[in-house]
Amino acid sequence: MKPIVRPPDLRRRALILSLALLPALSVPLLPTSAPAQTATTEAPLPSWNDGPAKQAIIDFVRATTERSSPNYVPPEERIATFDQDGTLWVEKPMYTQIIYCLDRVPAVVAKRPELKNVEPFKTVLSGNREAIAKLPMHDLEKVLVATLTGMTVEEFKAEASKWLETARHPRWKRPYTELTYQPMHDVLRYLRANAYKTYIVTGGGQDFVRVYAEKVYGIPPEQVIGTASGTKYSYGKDGKPTLVKDPRLLLNDNNAGKVEGIHLMIGRRPYAAFGNSTGDRQMLEWTGAGAGPRLKMLVLHDDATREYAYGPATGLPDSKVGTFTQALYDEAKKKGWTVISMKNDWKRIFAFD
Amino acid sequence: MKPIVRPPDLRRRALILSLALLPALSVPLLPTSAPAQTATTEAPLPSWNDGPAKQAIIDFVRATTERSSPNYVPPEERIATFDQDGTLWVEKPMYTQIIYCLDRVPAVVAKRPELKNVEPFKTVLSGNREAIAKLPMHDLEKVLVATLTGMTVEEFKAEASKWLETARHPRWKRPYTELTYQPMHDVLRYLRANAYKTYIVTGGGQDFVRVYAEKVYGIPPEQVIGTASGTKYSYGKDGKPTLVKDPRLLLNDNNAGKVEGIHLMIGRRPYAAFGNSTGDRQMLEWTGAGAGPRLKMLVLHDDATREYAYGPATGLPDSKVGTFTQALYDEAKKKGWTVISMKNDWKRIFAFD
Repeated sequence: MKPIVRPPDLRRRALILSLALLPALSVPLLPTSAPAQTATTEAPLPSWNDGPAKQAIIDFVRATTERSSPNYVPPEERIATFDQDGTLWVEKPMYTQIIYCLDRVPAVVAKRPELKNVEPFKTVLSGNREAIAKLPMHDLEKVLVATLTGMTVEEFKAEASKWLETARHPRWKRPYTELTYQPMHDVLRYLRANAYKTYIVTGGGQDFVRVYAEKVYGIPPEQVIGTASGTKYSYGKDGKPTLVKDPRLLLNDNNAGKVEGIHLMIGRRPYAAFGNSTGDRQMLEWTGAGAGPRLKMLVLHDDATREYAYGPATGLPDSKVGTFTQALYDEAKKKGWTVISMKNDWKRIFAFD
Repeated sequence: MKPIVRPPDLRRRALILSLALLPALSVPLLPTSAPAQTATTEAPLPSWNDGPAKQAIIDFVRATTERSSPNYVPPEERIATFDQDGTLWVEKPMYTQIIYCLDRVPAVVAKRPELKNVEPFKTVLSGNREAIAKLPMHDLEKVLVATLTGMTVEEFKAEASKWLETARHPRWKRPYTELTYQPMHDVLRYLRANAYKTYIVTGGGQDFVRVYAEKVYGIPPEQVIGTASGTKYSYGKDGKPTLVKDPRLLLNDNNAGKVEGIHLMIGRRPYAAFGNSTGDRQMLEWTGAGAGPRLKMLVLHDDATREYAYGPATGLPDSKVGTFTQALYDEAKKKGWTVISMKNDWKRIFAFD
């Protein structure tokens, strides 16, 4: 008989960070605003060029929602899941949440001055990008724990909201929340107009993404599944209950963990799933293994001019491209998943284009 | 700095079982049917007698949903959470899920004959109720692990569905799914008609409750939060992905764990919460600590004729009544929570009354 309790696998947690190449820290400039919304009476997917990717989405929606279809899916079962980083918004030069954590270090050290001369905080405070880039995984985890846990859930939400309003992406000098892909907003809207419930299923922090998902994507907190730490319930000095974010890892929502997260939080198999890296592979496989038509799509970053080109678009061997492997795109081809070329399939990338 | 990973606390898991007094194993008799549904144009809460409990619900709904109210709550924030055992359905003589696990033992032993003469399976197979009642907690956990894990999520769903169709409650000789409280169906319907999203937040097994919650309560799987084990993603002989229920405990959704579960799965504080035991105390406290009107209700089992009388209704000291303590009802009174008297507040208990 298996043991009843096994500790979560730390190595899987480490994968969250494994692509965290080092960024410029962000510089406050402008207020955040939501991406432009277009009218709902328009033809579907206006930011998409005609082609097989756009057609696959339209065919899938018709097949599963038209009453006369042999593959009609009842509304309550219409679940669509979306990876976030690299699928709904820009993930370069590094995951936005990692930038948030690095940016938070000065405030954490101000409250806990004993950390000032302790690594990795000392290096992060130095602003030396090369040195920060060389911090070992174990040190980066200390930064995550120090900046994402130990405060109440309300305090975290307030801090992250404030940061999102002021932080700017180093390339576009815009709030990160404006660097969401307009064609994916089209897909979210189109699916929801057809009674699909849209979920984010992200390797990133669940609480972090929940701060902006409703405003930015129209996805409420209860439809955001992400890597989640525990919380600790206790009572403040006034006797009022508080819920404090805890370093204990509850769910590592990446790779097979995405399927586990979907089962835990939804309890139904998705009919549509969107991703862009090997972290999404199992979610797409699991979706594809269901009966009837299932939409499995991978975003290929092949547009160095308008966004970035990486992974298979570079021609580099898999050992050099992190989790955006040629092997994944070969699996996609073999299994009939649809690859979205940002360069060819997307008329525009951002709402401000 | 705290450790990043701590194993879940086994003692908390044990609490799930702590009220599991021993039952007659169930006897198949009749097909399951959903409780009677009444028209939606009726006055709210038809199965309730007029009184402070009914009035508290109506006042709360008006205060939070009428546009002119100073305490108006936007629809997307309208969350109501319900304990299940003893709050939505009968929990005596023991939790239905424990009866399911005991009933499953012969099938498990048929597949794994090496367990036949091993405790606790030997005792469970004997049918000796007194001996089964004396099984130590550690042994009951072995029964849970053997009957709730080690199969795919689809296999578990099929097995539990089949059992629910045939098993009967020893007192009423009806399917367990008919032993749901009609007045609570009224509340679920009334809240949903006012744009509240209704959730079950149960110490029982999440996967078990999800099997029937949509059909029985109109609550979809993604709105069932319960004690949850992990799952393991792998590939079958045909290469198809499978998700197998794993003994690893992910969430112990009882006591403070209910608040943690609500944060994990919803990410919003409820406006209304219903419970009946100390396992619900923190959920009600957390709900009550939010701003504006919040509905906190406790079901008091004080109707030995139509259902059962236990806890404070017995006049026994708290040391004798398990988790249905006078201390909890004293806290309710002190904090302005509303106690529902099944005897006085409910016109009828079941749909078949």
